[in-house]
Amino acid sequence: MDTLQALKTRRSVRRFQAGQVDAGALDRALEAATYAPTGMGRQAPQLVVVQDAQTLDQLRKMNMEVLGGGKDPYYGAPTIVLALAPEDVNTYVEDASCVLTYLMLALHEEGVASVWVHREREMFASAEGKALLKKWGIPEKYQGVGSLAVGYAEGDYPQAAPRREGYVLKV
Amino acid sequence: MDTLQALKTRRSVRRFQAGQVDAGALDRALEAATYAPTGMGRQAPQLVVVQDAQTLDQLRKMNMEVLGGGKDPYYGAPTIVLALAPEDVNTYVEDASCVLTYLMLALHEEGVASVWVHREREMFASAEGKALLKKWGIPEKYQGVGSLAVGYAEGDYPQAAPRREGYVLKV
Repeated sequence: MDTLQALKTRRSVRRFQAGQVDAGALDRALEAATYAPTGMGRQAPQLVVVQDAQTLDQLRKMNMEVLGGGKDPYYGAPTIVLALAPEDVNTYVEDASCVLTYLMLALHEEGVASVWVHREREMFASAEGKALLKKWGIPEKYQGVGSLAVGYAEGDYPQAAPRREGYVLKV
Repeated sequence: MDTLQALKTRRSVRRFQAGQVDAGALDRALEAATYAPTGMGRQAPQLVVVQDAQTLDQLRKMNMEVLGGGKDPYYGAPTIVLALAPEDVNTYVEDASCVLTYLMLALHEEGVASVWVHREREMFASAEGKALLKKWGIPEKYQGVGSLAVGYAEGDYPQAAPRREGYVLKV
């Protein structure tokens, strides 16, 4: 689809089908996401794709601990893509946010739904998070910035709320 | 163009033509940018479009003050779009980063080039920045998150550097 159409039609989805995302679609979207611009062209962010039941469950529990309870913060999605970035890069939050945005749009083009989930900052500042980084071979300086819960949308696709008046100010 | 093509072909441009951006193209891109997802759907970010010579010059000087000198940090672009967001929204940096990413991609679809410029955080934390906010009717709690320098590309369009090996880790 045309890019403006993609930007305007992509919505955050919080109900997912149980089935896993097509591997080719996910790979194409991940590759496109790596083309996001990053501060000084350093390509500093790190994407981590999680699909195994045990690690998905661990991430859910870690995120709920930050939340202090409640429901699954990843909405039962069959795939979670984490975005981490090294804290010694001064634009690390913006860079990883840009990569996540690229990824959500690329997934939308591929017919795959997603929702941005937060609290990875706290998750990967914890001892359990740091143990996961070590297990994955990622240096400790990498901070959690955010993630996408990824899967095929279940039920009706959400509609956009009206846009806020005055969102764009021309001075 | 197709979204994946847009994501993979859009590059940061640092040389701009002197001519102003087509008003219709800019408006379509700005409107599309407001469809970016934001934390809790709050649409908290604020875009500010600057095109008058005096304010452009003021922003350049303010940014150079943060840098401590050097060349024009906005590369002589005829338009600067600032992204601000309220600090009492815990996802304000991520939200405004997402909106800027939407905007850069929408501009690319419209044939308009851009580069993400930083240091607005420091600029709008200063007395001069706060005075600008007041002049524009924006509450003081809004922080500068980033901006795009926007215009038509001058010279050859940049090519993508090779992507970093290991950017995507599957665990």
